[in-house]
Amino acid sequence: TFFLHFRGLASLKPPSSLFAPLDTFSERHIGPDDAETSKMLSQLGYESIEAFVADTVPPKVRVSTHSVNNKSIPSFSESQLHARAKELAGLNKPFKSYIGMGYHCAVVPPVILRNVMENPAWYTPYTPYQPEIAQGRLESLVNFQTMVASLTAMDIANASLLDEATAAAEGMVMSSVSAPKKKTFVVDSGVAPQTIAVLHTRAKGFGIRVVIGDASSVLEDPKIRSDICGVLVQYPDVNGNIKDFSPLAQATHTLGALVICATDLLSLTKIKAPGEWGADVVVGNSARFGVPAGYGGPHAAFFAVTDRLKRKMPGRLIGRSRDTQGNPAYRLSLQTREQHIRREKATSNICTSQALLANMAAMYAVYHGPAGLKRIATKVHKFTQVFKAAVESIGYKALNGTFFDTLTLDVSALGSAEALHAQAAAAGINLRRIDDNHVGVSFDESVSPHDLVNLLNVFTTYASAKAFKLSDLSEPEFTVIPPELRRTSEYLPHPVFNKHHSETEMLRYIHHLAGKDLSLVHSMIPLGSCTMKLNSTSSMIPLTWPEFSSVHPFAPYDQVKGYLQMIKELEDDLCRITGFHAASLQPNSGAAGEYTGLCVIRAYHESRGESHRDVCLIPLSAHGTNPASATMAGLKVVSVKVHNDGNLDLEDLRAKAEKYKDNLAAFMITYPSTFGVFEAGVLDACQIIHDNGGQVYLDGANLNAQIGLTNPATCGGDVCHMNLHKTFAIPHGGGGPGVGPICVAEHLAPFLPSHPAMPVRGEQSIEAVSAAPFGSASINLISWAYIKMLGGQGLVDSSKMALLNANYMANRLQGHYNLRYKNENGRVAHELLIDLAEFDKAAGLKVTDFAKRLQDYGFHPPTCSWPIQTCMLIEPTESETLEELDRFCDAMIEIRKEAGDIIYGKQPKDNNLLKNAPHTISAIASSEWNRPYTREQAAYPLPWLRERKFWPTVSRIDDAYGDLNLICDCPSVEELAQH
Amino acid sequence: TFFLHFRGLASLKPPSSLFAPLDTFSERHIGPDDAETSKMLSQLGYESIEAFVADTVPPKVRVSTHSVNNKSIPSFSESQLHARAKELAGLNKPFKSYIGMGYHCAVVPPVILRNVMENPAWYTPYTPYQPEIAQGRLESLVNFQTMVASLTAMDIANASLLDEATAAAEGMVMSSVSAPKKKTFVVDSGVAPQTIAVLHTRAKGFGIRVVIGDASSVLEDPKIRSDICGVLVQYPDVNGNIKDFSPLAQATHTLGALVICATDLLSLTKIKAPGEWGADVVVGNSARFGVPAGYGGPHAAFFAVTDRLKRKMPGRLIGRSRDTQGNPAYRLSLQTREQHIRREKATSNICTSQALLANMAAMYAVYHGPAGLKRIATKVHKFTQVFKAAVESIGYKALNGTFFDTLTLDVSALGSAEALHAQAAAAGINLRRIDDNHVGVSFDESVSPHDLVNLLNVFTTYASAKAFKLSDLSEPEFTVIPPELRRTSEYLPHPVFNKHHSETEMLRYIHHLAGKDLSLVHSMIPLGSCTMKLNSTSSMIPLTWPEFSSVHPFAPYDQVKGYLQMIKELEDDLCRITGFHAASLQPNSGAAGEYTGLCVIRAYHESRGESHRDVCLIPLSAHGTNPASATMAGLKVVSVKVHNDGNLDLEDLRAKAEKYKDNLAAFMITYPSTFGVFEAGVLDACQIIHDNGGQVYLDGANLNAQIGLTNPATCGGDVCHMNLHKTFAIPHGGGGPGVGPICVAEHLAPFLPSHPAMPVRGEQSIEAVSAAPFGSASINLISWAYIKMLGGQGLVDSSKMALLNANYMANRLQGHYNLRYKNENGRVAHELLIDLAEFDKAAGLKVTDFAKRLQDYGFHPPTCSWPIQTCMLIEPTESETLEELDRFCDAMIEIRKEAGDIIYGKQPKDNNLLKNAPHTISAIASSEWNRPYTREQAAYPLPWLRERKFWPTVSRIDDAYGDLNLICDCPSVEELAQH
Ligand SMILES: Cc1ncc(COP(=O)(O)O)c(C=O)c1O
Ligand SMILES: Cc1ncc(COP(=O)(O)O)c(C=O)c1O
Ligand SMILES: O=C([O-])O
Repeated sequence: TFFLHFRGLASLKPPSSLFAPLDTFSERHIGPDDAETSKMLSQLGYESIEAFVADTVPPKVRVSTHSVNNKSIPSFSESQLHARAKELAGLNKPFKSYIGMGYHCAVVPPVILRNVMENPAWYTPYTPYQPEIAQGRLESLVNFQTMVASLTAMDIANASLLDEATAAAEGMVMSSVSAPKKKTFVVDSGVAPQTIAVLHTRAKGFGIRVVIGDASSVLEDPKIRSDICGVLVQYPDVNGNIKDFSPLAQATHTLGALVICATDLLSLTKIKAPGEWGADVVVGNSARFGVPAGYGGPHAAFFAVTDRLKRKMPGRLIGRSRDTQGNPAYRLSLQTREQHIRREKATSNICTSQALLANMAAMYAVYHGPAGLKRIATKVHKFTQVFKAAVESIGYKALNGTFFDTLTLDVSALGSAEALHAQAAAAGINLRRIDDNHVGVSFDESVSPHDLVNLLNVFTTYASAKAFKLSDLSEPEFTVIPPELRRTSEYLPHPVFNKHHSETEMLRYIHHLAGKDLSLVHSMIPLGSCTMKLNSTSSMIPLTWPEFSSVHPFAPYDQVKGYLQMIKELEDDLCRITGFHAASLQPNSGAAGEYTGLCVIRAYHESRGESHRDVCLIPLSAHGTNPASATMAGLKVVSVKVHNDGNLDLEDLRAKAEKYKDNLAAFMITYPSTFGVFEAGVLDACQIIHDNGGQVYLDGANLNAQIGLTNPATCGGDVCHMNLHKTFAIPHGGGGPGVGPICVAEHLAPFLPSHPAMPVRGEQSIEAVSAAPFGSASINLISWAYIKMLGGQGLVDSSKMALLNANYMANRLQGHYNLRYKNENGRVAHELLIDLAEFDKAAGLKVTDFAKRLQDYGFHPPTCSWPIQTCMLIEPTESETLEELDRFCDAMIEIRKEAGDIIYGKQPKDNNLLKNAPHTISAIASSEWNRPYTREQAAYPLPWLRERKFWPTVSRIDDAYGDLNLICDCPSVEELAQH
Repeated sequence: TFFLHFRGLASLKPPSSLFAPLDTFSERHIGPDDAETSKMLSQLGYESIEAFVADTVPPKVRVSTHSVNNKSIPSFSESQLHARAKELAGLNKPFKSYIGMGYHCAVVPPVILRNVMENPAWYTPYTPYQPEIAQGRLESLVNFQTMVASLTAMDIANASLLDEATAAAEGMVMSSVSAPKKKTFVVDSGVAPQTIAVLHTRAKGFGIRVVIGDASSVLEDPKIRSDICGVLVQYPDVNGNIKDFSPLAQATHTLGALVICATDLLSLTKIKAPGEWGADVVVGNSARFGVPAGYGGPHAAFFAVTDRLKRKMPGRLIGRSRDTQGNPAYRLSLQTREQHIRREKATSNICTSQALLANMAAMYAVYHGPAGLKRIATKVHKFTQVFKAAVESIGYKALNGTFFDTLTLDVSALGSAEALHAQAAAAGINLRRIDDNHVGVSFDESVSPHDLVNLLNVFTTYASAKAFKLSDLSEPEFTVIPPELRRTSEYLPHPVFNKHHSETEMLRYIHHLAGKDLSLVHSMIPLGSCTMKLNSTSSMIPLTWPEFSSVHPFAPYDQVKGYLQMIKELEDDLCRITGFHAASLQPNSGAAGEYTGLCVIRAYHESRGESHRDVCLIPLSAHGTNPASATMAGLKVVSVKVHNDGNLDLEDLRAKAEKYKDNLAAFMITYPSTFGVFEAGVLDACQIIHDNGGQVYLDGANLNAQIGLTNPATCGGDVCHMNLHKTFAIPHGGGGPGVGPICVAEHLAPFLPSHPAMPVRGEQSIEAVSAAPFGSASINLISWAYIKMLGGQGLVDSSKMALLNANYMANRLQGHYNLRYKNENGRVAHELLIDLAEFDKAAGLKVTDFAKRLQDYGFHPPTCSWPIQTCMLIEPTESETLEELDRFCDAMIEIRKEAGDIIYGKQPKDNNLLKNAPHTISAIASSEWNRPYTREQAAYPLPWLRERKFWPTVSRIDDAYGDLNLICDCPSVEELAQH
């Protein structure tokens, strides 16, 4: 009969026992099957995978298999995982939350839930660095920017930040940078406590003094006045009050300081926009626009500024430029602002942000339109009014005069707040805990009339008053918002927000945009340093179960036992994998993890009376976030050289470590290195640092190469972050969400971040680094599921296969391209770096030309011009099959031939397949064709492209034009009419 | 500020009360908003929608609003519906089922669940009658055909039938047609009872005598032998036994009769295929290949035959042909076999089948591959063996010698079966009820070791034996399948079944195919008589909740209270809408509904001693399923003429009714007519029939034009079917599933179908027409949700808007095209018929040329050449916006101009934009271009196509070539190697 192929290294044979499950995840996760694996091994000259690994990972850093195996991490089949996730879901209690504080129970329009959030075409693409194959999500992100700018009445907004608290911190730093001599930042007492906690942490690194109090009064304090760089207010504030901040804004500006305003987008349909009363920076959380609470995230924060601040704005900014055909085209603008370029001069390290969630929020606005949003806001506001009137009628006292959706109630006349909370809990309701005399109540779109009555009757029962029926409640006739605070200006007049209001149209818009974007549903995305692997459906499914998606991040611990169990299991497994002692899931991205880890290191030094240690050594080859994070943590960056062979210059390291040994705080190293090499010298390097009093921060972006083979602890690190959105299969979401937890050695554990809503960490903890106690808690489910389903063996197999796939590609490509680095056995790690400098020299062909031409072959280009300007960094991951690797290599080799034709003069240097790439259908369909190659050569250079081709929707984009003519919102009625 | 547009006729104003929900479904469902509605009305010269409707629907048949309104059918908002569905889900009890009888708890691979079943790109397309924009699902359906043919070892299989029982009935009829003189059909006693019930019903119409018994013995009965046309066996049989049917097959063939075999695909990986022991026809249910049980459906049945029977095979058949460029291309083959062509000469009326479910099953086979399927089958088989050994060790007796997954146990030594069932129920387990001494147990892929132990311990407890632990059970060393019954031949060697086994590859394959197909996610699909409206996400979501998806159709009624409540509500609402008295949800398609309705009419006549009434009058304009259904119900079809203005020739009707009055059984009429006209004469027509002793069957395919305006009862009907997949928003699934319930007047209610597993209907009921008591129960949730969310007002508004949209289009198109029919006020109904005969006369341009050219404009063509050869029938539905209607009309008008150029000789008659349509990218990208128009004219005839275009993936397909060179399976290794 025929030969059976089984997938995955651990399962070369059929399951050993009748009672073993058949739906083993590793068989589906790992791309190559046993036959393909053998073929690759023999091509590389190995008899076994073990022999191959032995040549690839330096023996010095190898770990024994006891830490990561099927005993320490037992494997669940896909259906077992599903059952286990259901079990955990059952441990979370579905309370109705009125806690507010910036988190709401969002109503996700079903068409967006299913077609964006649950659609791999939206959740698997990469950050849109290749705009020609990313116009869909770029357009949507511009919708997000436009929505934010229009609702806040600011000039320009970015394409999302991690959360409101870190956005506020970015605002604070911006104000400090704008007034470098001033060191005081004023925070109004109406700002949410989690924001204040994050500001405290962040202020430290920048030497900023945070003063909390009534902002107007503080501004009058003569001792402080002259030192103020900025003021942060919250509008409406955390207690529900809406104040007229115009006088404060004027006063602040008189001092030459910036006004930062944290706000709520929904309220801005009803109240005067911050841009209309003088705010310079407006930040907030867009989650109530259709993004589930998820016990804290993920969701997209926003950041909007006045025109004059735009070039200082952190984060990614999408602009409209034009392509070589003169058609409008979206792209990432002003990249020179980003830490990739500015490195230690950067004051923000934001890299992965929250694209998917920004897109969901934008789609929510597209679906509801300005009128729909106003309708929702009006309902929420009126429910709040109805509630206030009702509770006041039975003896409670609301402290709010002007409010939108949130009230602070004085309950002291009727008893203690705690007893009222108990009463609410009995009804399955959470109120905000303020103090013994006060509770907070906050309304959102999800509150039904039935919910309102239930809520009210917690208060009536408690007050021994008569229960309310719905018919007792009547619609308020007037708004409590005074005329001078009302919104009168127009918002969201752009056609895109006024068109797609039927579900059919919305569905088509969502799919139309998705159709422009290349994602993992099309072909491999071999991005070095990004680990674009399979994001399995099984791991995605539990995310949108209400037991996980509708949990408020400040819900009492006894309601979130399922979450806490999952978090504990994930932390334990991450510790097993890294070899460390304790973990924190709070950081919302890799860069946030770096920053957190460095803050922990600083706290450690401080605890030993060594707070002066402030030098951070960083190799020149490091990712731009490393120096940026160090700067944010208040460290001085000293660069360390790198050898031509890709390895760290140990002599330079030693020299600098010794030079700075009195002040040495940390060393940051990436392993395998950003060049894709397992350096054997890592142990020595770490020893040098330790000998000189420093701590070692290991950037775990490349952890996928390590699991069960080596680990950060064994390599000599003290702390590392992991990008769960790389190694642990959280999808990239087109540029976020991400999760960047850190793991630390035992001596650093006491310093892991705490949180105002998380009373568990010890006294030495640093303050919060994120707005929510467990960061983007809900998507941790994905990594939890990934680890549980692979189990120890599957995890190790995955790392081995990631190495094998990369080495196979290196082997195929090295005859054709200059493979920059390999170890003494000729092996690369999980990625490979090829240098294209020769083509530039010979024919002026740049990395970009190769990258754009790869688009014509239906592939997402690898990471370009990083870590070396003239290089491409290629990372296949374990999830790609040999067939797909070969397709990619074939494409690269064919492009090499095309380049040869240019070098040898068969094709002109300025008009050829590479320089003109990518080719759109529109270009191909043009009657005029004065190119020195055929349409077929442009479109179908290899035969399989006839069946399987992804078409870029715009031609190459003019970057300079875009940066010069910065346009960051979507077309207006007038502009569209012109077209 | 700005003007707020609200959507939907009922909601021109913001919600009246603060406590009214905001997520009103009709606002999302109905395309045009108030401004667009006004614009359309004024274009047609009306001040109000009421005035428009008054001119459109004949006053004589108008109903008052009291039957369908917000009182009789209150409306639920989307979130209220969600909550209500959750409530009903909670009423279904999640029992683990071992009932078997052809229904299993399937394990749906998550990647297929989310990317096929929950993906609108797969569930919203239409039947692939336009193959150039349907290559994706055509390829997948060929995978289905190949999978069936290969596993059954038959020559050819079709692209699905409704369920196993009706597939067996089709086999019976085929055998009877093949031996027209013979009238006896032998059914082996191992055949499932629901199949036998359906055979009884079907046999009646064809005058076939069904004899049940041990087939071999019956064949030897000299009184019967000579009259036998066919034999049906089940293999493995319903009791779990596997017999060697080769001798029976030989004996049957000796008699010149056909062997029909009902089988189970999974078992065929272990046992000899029916094609290998002589079966002529093989039928079955493919649901255990990853299709949820759904309380009975939907799922895809299959039908495979030997080569010599292929042209007699019922149902749709996909073949590989070639396009005008010579590339391979899939298409519907041998359409002349279908009832559309054969009408009353057809012996099958199958039209809508089960494409989506066939595709899911095919994808399951693609994902698991032959080795994976065998692994699953082996596990299921061995679990059965383990179970048998264990229960036999404690005193139960299994009656099976050779078995695959099902056992019949004699429990009499230990007590009564009923008590054992009670014991099982206490453990949340269902066993098959057989009789007082026997129970059945059937295993499937979903049974975990833990489940097995639980099941066993029902038996131990009952036998007062010691409980089993998993460790007590050991893997059987031998199979019980004797060598001569084992499968030894290869299956599924085709590359497609041996490639896509990693989730990444599978995901890409699914999306690659979806990318070839035009669906509602792209643009309107204006198919007359098909009502391609919005299939909302809210109505789809509950379908895949386990409380609905994992229910066995024969589960005891007290476990399915949620389902029964939903079914009752839906039946009640359908009765309200049609004006009838009672409903049956059993028929699985419109055509099945027709057949059922006619059977009910026959039973009614019979009950009055008038079984001789056997003449059925049918207008010439009727849909092909009407005459076919009549023939199947044993009626003689007499055609009735139609006037040139589209109306029924009442004189001809009267003449024929009177002529046949002694034998007149029924009259079938479609309303509005298939020409898209509300005939005022319908009342008179029905009166004529009633006066002559006949009953009126109203084909409800066009019910979307009627709701709340008129209804089938008011029009004079006695029974009607509804296509829930048209009017009531079940998505078309690319050619099914469908649901075709019937509603009947009070006097017909006693005759509605019963079912062996449904003890509720009365004594006069006809026997089952489907294998499951409530047909495709799970998808009824969609129509239930649709009706509940729209509520009475929304339903009526939808019908009005469907009429308005159609009349607006008629108005725009009539200056350019010959609009065939309108009423005396110039109004069409919900669809319009344009006649293209003039273009054929002037320039040889056929309907097809216009249709294919529409593809170039990104639209799915309307219904072509039906009901009139030279026409297109255009139906917009209420869900399309004015903008989309205009886009379509613009395209039609532009094509009219292109046709003008051909007529006036500016373009040659044989080489022009229409004849060469559709244009693929490949054709456009060709260097050679010797066409008398530009590439741009071919690809982008209107400006918006630059942004929004759907590309056909093959050129026009050669139909004749395909029918001549019939190839209905997917490419083999060798064929692919040639390419
Ligand atoms: C080596 C390295 N370090 C850090 C980061 C930053 O991670 P994040 O984008 O999650 O902030 C990246 C991201 O690509 C990286 O490649
Ligand atoms: C008028 C008419 N009657 C009956 C049918 C048959 O319905 P079904 O395809 O659901 O079997 C159709 C289907 O298109 C139809 O248009
Ligand atoms: O986002 C990256 O820096 O790759």
